Amino acid sequence: MTPNDFIRAKRDGRRHSPAELRWFVNALTDETIADYQATAWLMAAFLNGLDVDETSSLTLAMAESGAMLEFPTLGTVVDKHSTGGVGDAVTPLFIPIVAACGVPVVKMSGRGLGFTGGTLDKLESIPGFRGDLDPDELLAQAERIGCAWGGQTANHAPADKILYALRDATETVESLPLIAASIMSKKLAAGAGVIMLDVKCGNGAFMQTPQEAHDLALALVSIAGSAGRCARAFITDMNQPLATAVGNALELKAAFAELKSGMKGRLGRVVMALAEAACNEAGAQVSPRKAVDSGAAKDKLREWIEAQGGDERVVDDPSLLPSAPVTESVMIGARGFVTGIDCQAIGEVVRSLGAGRLSVNDVIDPSVGIEIFVELGDEVGESTRVFEVHAASEADAAQAVGELRKTITVSDDPVESPILVQPMEA
Amino acid sequence: MTPNDFIRAKRDGRRHSPAELRWFVNALTDETIADYQATAWLMAAFLNGLDVDETSSLTLAMAESGAMLEFPTLGTVVDKHSTGGVGDAVTPLFIPIVAACGVPVVKMSGRGLGFTGGTLDKLESIPGFRGDLDPDELLAQAERIGCAWGGQTANHAPADKILYALRDATETVESLPLIAASIMSKKLAAGAGVIMLDVKCGNGAFMQTPQEAHDLALALVSIAGSAGRCARAFITDMNQPLATAVGNALELKAAFAELKSGMKGRLGRVVMALAEAACNEAGAQVSPRKAVDSGAAKDKLREWIEAQGGDERVVDDPSLLPSAPVTESVMIGARGFVTGIDCQAIGEVVRSLGAGRLSVNDVIDPSVGIEIFVELGDEVGESTRVFEVHAASEADAAQAVGELRKTITVSDDPVESPILVQPMEA
Repeated sequence: MTPNDFIRAKRDGRRHSPAELRWFVNALTDETIADYQATAWLMAAFLNGLDVDETSSLTLAMAESGAMLEFPTLGTVVDKHSTGGVGDAVTPLFIPIVAACGVPVVKMSGRGLGFTGGTLDKLESIPGFRGDLDPDELLAQAERIGCAWGGQTANHAPADKILYALRDATETVESLPLIAASIMSKKLAAGAGVIMLDVKCGNGAFMQTPQEAHDLALALVSIAGSAGRCARAFITDMNQPLATAVGNALELKAAFAELKSGMKGRLGRVVMALAEAACNEAGAQVSPRKAVDSGAAKDKLREWIEAQGGDERVVDDPSLLPSAPVTESVMIGARGFVTGIDCQAIGEVVRSLGAGRLSVNDVIDPSVGIEIFVELGDEVGESTRVFEVHAASEADAAQAVGELRKTITVSDDPVESPILVQPMEA
Repeated sequence: MTPNDFIRAKRDGRRHSPAELRWFVNALTDETIADYQATAWLMAAFLNGLDVDETSSLTLAMAESGAMLEFPTLGTVVDKHSTGGVGDAVTPLFIPIVAACGVPVVKMSGRGLGFTGGTLDKLESIPGFRGDLDPDELLAQAERIGCAWGGQTANHAPADKILYALRDATETVESLPLIAASIMSKKLAAGAGVIMLDVKCGNGAFMQTPQEAHDLALALVSIAGSAGRCARAFITDMNQPLATAVGNALELKAAFAELKSGMKGRLGRVVMALAEAACNEAGAQVSPRKAVDSGAAKDKLREWIEAQGGDERVVDDPSLLPSAPVTESVMIGARGFVTGIDCQAIGEVVRSLGAGRLSVNDVIDPSVGIEIFVELGDEVGESTRVFEVHAASEADAAQAVGELRKTITVSDDPVESPILVQPMEA
């Protein structure tokens, strides 16, 4: 196999063998194939596609391009991945709830882009929280308290890092097989036996239609199956923010409030669906509902934060989290029913406030963001408060208020809300 | 325009504006676009295509990426390009014949690959011949004697050099619009007003079918028209070697013999068709037939060789050209009619003898090659001599003899020969 042979095969629409894809991944990491050859192949793969078997082979080779973590002392370990949304505060609740059911949860992440950074950025708004446990620390903590959050090392699926940078520079990101391979290579390398997948669908998500979301979910689950892991996927609605806030500290506050009020809101129902499926797959003795109602989940949340070096008092006293100096309310200014919420636009506003990144070196302000007080279908009057803006300055707040007004559509007749959470049908 | 915008447009099958393509060519030369981005675009262009207007815009921008030669003192200058074949000794005769008709001919070339190098390698088998005249020398000689052969400078369509190297490494060479742009960017930069195009078609050519050859010819002519130049294209047969020899000095000997015997053979008829069309377009006072029959063409050939520093006595005394130490005849060993000549295989044999290059640094042996004594349709007997091998060693000759036997098909019934030369029909 030479770089030219490999490129020509996909250029001509041929199917790669597992051995060819493994050759490619090795060639990427040892630089047998040049960047300018890899990107020609990426465009050919983007345009001519990769089938299920090719995608699985590519993913496994990418995972095995670095260290493959294993947790033999922990039994069945659960991991979770979200494809990314607005107000997506699922993970900070999912981890302690599942762990409180006796099922170990180990999750790792890199530094992400996005409207509000990633879950790591949210967790780091807790004073003292360390999100960069190395593999040994991760294992030791998971053995001790049943859950741990670690940083991805440079040797975590390094082929994915190379490919992602090349895809980003060449408009080959938005390819379903390449997206699936990128996500799952990191999950397979992270060592969990049960992988919960939260595939967002709607105007605030990468996948805008149920069909697209289903296709991605199916690709992810198929890859896991090929690699001998169990994956369960849910399609969850992202036509409105999931939590009642968007921002880093603000989302954590909303999540803690949701846990304390019994997990009945939109965020709570999504977390519980994922947690119940994870506990079923892992054979938990305690149900997530019981763990929440008994207070065990909240105890585990505090224990987890403390173990990671954070101030666990934030769970009961959210005022210990960073707060922004300027707040301003946004009224709806119209009567009727909320029929549209432009989630992506809300995300952009929140990023503009300083909560997210456009490039990896941007610094996040954990305190800024918005609270949102309406949902799709709600009946509103002119003075209904829709948003509370939390900003670093009056000018930022004024800018955000103007933009936020355009994100809500009010009509005379209500619309039906999309289904909040549903398991992927195979 | 950013590299990503540009790539995305072609990825999604959109049509580039002339301004976008000019941006791309500038970005290539000033490195605003990285190699790994250019190759992603090349693959997108390979798979999604470039239409006639895009191809013309790209070509003109590539031509203008370096110096654009002009010959205002010469009037209408003729240039000629062949898409490359086996025994393709057209240019060494075309140049002096057209010049002898009073029409200036200026041709430039780079160092090529191929079975027998390029025309420059053939000319350099003449002792003393200098093929690297710079633009000033080129002009001065053309003013003085009406024809000149020069080398392409580093500043001759430099964007083509960049793109060609990237295409070669990424299996994006075989794209008709990219091939056409590469050829014509160099022709447009070379300054001729009349461009004669010899598009080879057959088993020894890049274009194997008349349709492919026609498509390429049409693309080349369209580009010239868009750039305000006159181009005339001929489709010529390459299902058997054009000259009666393949090799560098051997092809020159065959060409000189053809000129002296009145240009009635296959090589002669192709040269005359191109020369007549060129002279018509340029408004020559003398016809190529007259120039040949009067001896003026042969005089011009000698004058041209002498002007370029070569020993002009080779025209009348071919023994002054390099000759190989070993010769060996190949008999046909069968009775019937010649129904197939594998031109490409013959080319490979001749390259193996040392006449051509696989990489640009290979050194050519000007003396080696083959003579061929049969044509398609000829009736042969067992002892008919088909080839005379000219080799550097007995071992090379023996190897070539074995390979050459396989290149000729003899059958009981004759086949019709393909049309030798025909003008492209628009």
